[in-house]
Amino acid sequence: MGLDNLELTVKRFNVSIGESRVVMNSADAEAVGASPHDRVKVAKGDSYAVALTSVAESDDVVGRGELGVFSDVLRRLPLREGDRVTVEVIPPPPSVATVKKKMRGERLEEKEIFDLVRDVYDGMLSDVELTAFVVSLDHHGMSMEEVEALTRAMADVGSRLDFGDYLVVDKHSVGGVPGNSKDALIVVPIVAAAGLFMPKTSTRAIMSPAGTVDTMEVLAPVDLTPGEIVEITKRVGGSISWAAGANLSPVDGIFIRKVEYPLSIDPESLIYASIMSKKRAAGVKRLVLDIPVGSEAKVESFKEARRMARNLIELGERLGIETQVAISYGGQPVGRCVGPALEAREALEILSSGGRGSRSVIEKAVAIAGMLLEMGGAAAIGAGEKMAKEILETGRAYEKMREIIEAQGGDPDVKPEDVPVGEHVAQIRAKSSGYVAAVSNRAIVRIARAAGAPGDKGAGVKIFAKRGDRVEAGDPLIEIYAERQSKLQKALEVARSTEPVRVEGMVLEVYRDRTIGREVLREAP
Amino acid sequence: MGLDNLELTVKRFNVSIGESRVVMNSADAEAVGASPHDRVKVAKGDSYAVALTSVAESDDVVGRGELGVFSDVLRRLPLREGDRVTVEVIPPPPSVATVKKKMRGERLEEKEIFDLVRDVYDGMLSDVELTAFVVSLDHHGMSMEEVEALTRAMADVGSRLDFGDYLVVDKHSVGGVPGNSKDALIVVPIVAAAGLFMPKTSTRAIMSPAGTVDTMEVLAPVDLTPGEIVEITKRVGGSISWAAGANLSPVDGIFIRKVEYPLSIDPESLIYASIMSKKRAAGVKRLVLDIPVGSEAKVESFKEARRMARNLIELGERLGIETQVAISYGGQPVGRCVGPALEAREALEILSSGGRGSRSVIEKAVAIAGMLLEMGGAAAIGAGEKMAKEILETGRAYEKMREIIEAQGGDPDVKPEDVPVGEHVAQIRAKSSGYVAAVSNRAIVRIARAAGAPGDKGAGVKIFAKRGDRVEAGDPLIEIYAERQSKLQKALEVARSTEPVRVEGMVLEVYRDRTIGREVLREAP
Repeated sequence: MGLDNLELTVKRFNVSIGESRVVMNSADAEAVGASPHDRVKVAKGDSYAVALTSVAESDDVVGRGELGVFSDVLRRLPLREGDRVTVEVIPPPPSVATVKKKMRGERLEEKEIFDLVRDVYDGMLSDVELTAFVVSLDHHGMSMEEVEALTRAMADVGSRLDFGDYLVVDKHSVGGVPGNSKDALIVVPIVAAAGLFMPKTSTRAIMSPAGTVDTMEVLAPVDLTPGEIVEITKRVGGSISWAAGANLSPVDGIFIRKVEYPLSIDPESLIYASIMSKKRAAGVKRLVLDIPVGSEAKVESFKEARRMARNLIELGERLGIETQVAISYGGQPVGRCVGPALEAREALEILSSGGRGSRSVIEKAVAIAGMLLEMGGAAAIGAGEKMAKEILETGRAYEKMREIIEAQGGDPDVKPEDVPVGEHVAQIRAKSSGYVAAVSNRAIVRIARAAGAPGDKGAGVKIFAKRGDRVEAGDPLIEIYAERQSKLQKALEVARSTEPVRVEGMVLEVYRDRTIGREVLREAP
Repeated sequence: MGLDNLELTVKRFNVSIGESRVVMNSADAEAVGASPHDRVKVAKGDSYAVALTSVAESDDVVGRGELGVFSDVLRRLPLREGDRVTVEVIPPPPSVATVKKKMRGERLEEKEIFDLVRDVYDGMLSDVELTAFVVSLDHHGMSMEEVEALTRAMADVGSRLDFGDYLVVDKHSVGGVPGNSKDALIVVPIVAAAGLFMPKTSTRAIMSPAGTVDTMEVLAPVDLTPGEIVEITKRVGGSISWAAGANLSPVDGIFIRKVEYPLSIDPESLIYASIMSKKRAAGVKRLVLDIPVGSEAKVESFKEARRMARNLIELGERLGIETQVAISYGGQPVGRCVGPALEAREALEILSSGGRGSRSVIEKAVAIAGMLLEMGGAAAIGAGEKMAKEILETGRAYEKMREIIEAQGGDPDVKPEDVPVGEHVAQIRAKSSGYVAAVSNRAIVRIARAAGAPGDKGAGVKIFAKRGDRVEAGDPLIEIYAERQSKLQKALEVARSTEPVRVEGMVLEVYRDRTIGREVLREAP
């Protein structure tokens, strides 16, 4: 015979287990009718949080009359040790039915999507339910109406940047190509130097060795509040900050951290909603999206890239964000450095030298900056790229970058060679002479991550020879940097079991009519 | 610069959170390079367990040098407070790649499936990974080869019942029809009375108001060890016990408890593997599978039932279990009682009266028992049902049931009226006179569960009028039993918002050519 609610005494567990969860004594759980998986409402006065139930297996951790509260709950409902709270079993929220609906492949209504996103934000769904939702998105997809609702809902639950009537521009890459995290470090100062507002917000690396904010963080703090982002951007024209730190589209981070990253999945509907919800929350009005295409990139075919481009432009229209797409070459890493510190160095070298360095980095950054200058009205149509190049070559971009670094709290006088990189270094050299037939995105990513990137900022890979380059036997192909000897060893093991740089003789392609279709054909370098 | 492993002091958390998880101090986690989601190997001497990592947010719960260990880990690696253990970050097990492979819809190899099942048993997979696997089975299915491997693997990781050369028979219902949990309470004593061995093992209710063991538990303990099941079955011919308690196919329970139940899914490949792995582990050689078919049953069409029957017979052949399938009528509840105590009463009444009571229960039980008598060689082909009926009517089945109850530790002299049922009772009465057009499986399940079944043994529903019965206005249609007033109220709310028993005038069906397809057509009663 049970009670409908219980008054219990809070015992704080300052441990994050990833779920909003409380622990009850078994006698109390039985009295109030709470089984594992049940949700309880934990209330103190007018405030409450919803939590999943665990049952203590003995009285020494949570005694009768006590309620163990994990920090995932404490973040939502601040409670002190010894506080009295009431606990009551409640039915699953309607968003659990929404998860099941998407599992069956059905279309979701706008309200269902908004409620679900709110519940994810409030910690109302278990990891199991969250996973089922994301895996089902991966399997069944979403209509454009659903993606639009998801994007709006994700932007709405977090902070919004308010730039009033100012025109805000931004760029974003769908990613998948190593070495690309430095792109924003060149584009933002060019665009800001031309007088436009570009509050670049980004995520940390998920599966790559470096995200834009991992790389920027080498030069300056990136964990800015919404107010700081707006103030800095208005003052110096640009900023590069961490979207999650400013609580922009916070549910995006939950999906990524809890499900997408551990399972290495990236459902298309969530790619769109992830990008566009952050841009909407940041108040962006003009956007360039970069879709790198190539072997072992996230997007491997032009057909796929064009389809994504059409969808993103349509989604932008629905959201009032004028969007242009640049489909870029993604068949090998961008530039010659991969990993946060190495890429920050490479960006600083290009900026401070007025545009000397890897052509693949510079041409791409200038092209994207040029599009933004035109979209933002700073350059006439057709004149953007030339203006961007001038801003870079005259050193104005470098000056602007120093202002941005200083505004964010970094050292504007930092020189490329001051940036610390891993002290454990090893080279992979060419076994024979020949031409570079391919630099493998996938192998470079695996090596850099094994070396410790992005967690160890100084870890990464330097690439000495790129597609089409002539190398002699014994020439260095790549150089691996690590902060720990053990990780360098692991990276070397990966390098030996993969082929990061493939060197072949002069004859790079063989076509035989009779065997065509069985050969793996490669593009000319 | 980090260490490859750390020695830490155990701090026990006697709380089950459902995942094999440990908590490290943030300084220790950083030193050893452990991030959330990383797996660590926790070793003491030659023994070790693998656990997921959580990081304490302050030092008061897990200080530097300490390791908080949840009971999910302690069950695998018994540790005392203050024990010294080494902790080392390890890469994800290969079964994580197997999960991802099934997410992509690919076929799994036998070895991949065996490793995965072993890792699930050992707690090596996170809830997120486990969910992704089960949801992907629901989306992509499995080939018969994969199901066979899954079934063998699930049986192999747990206990096996050893009956030597004795012929062991059993029955199992795929379920989905309320009131069916009592079937085994009649079939087992009939078959055992004929001299066959029938160690019926079963699960608790998942989505239904009563599973076979929930109902048996009203009469006798069901949590038997493998040794007790074998001993009792050899001594009295039959037993009805809890498969999970005897550790038969333990991974089945993990899939159900952690994913299938919370998400209300039941992937077909897991239905097969769940049933057959338990039968294989129990040493069953001849099996009758009951597939109830009807509106609102788990299986709604004969076509679907026949397909499942073919698959289960093939799977049985692959496993060396001779299998016959009975497709039974599942369009309304079986018998007149739903819920553990009410069904136990109904079964006892039928047994003790020599077969008086609800025809739907008796005919089905006798038919299934007859099939088993023939398959087990106790009756000639075609003579099984008659023999089963005689065993029931002469009271031999009741005598055998008393032996079974006593052998399992229950009171053999229990009378039907001694079985305690919920003291809070309410009736739903007919608003008008007419004929019963339908008794809704789904509504009866929801009402019985809202009333507290199967957790509250005395909760449930009694059904007074079934399909085709004539009722007068004011006649009772159903009676709801609950152990708590609040649950009776909830059950009544469900009863009012559904239509558990539909009463209509003499004209039960209306066909209009022009509107056909828009009418919901019903079978005649």
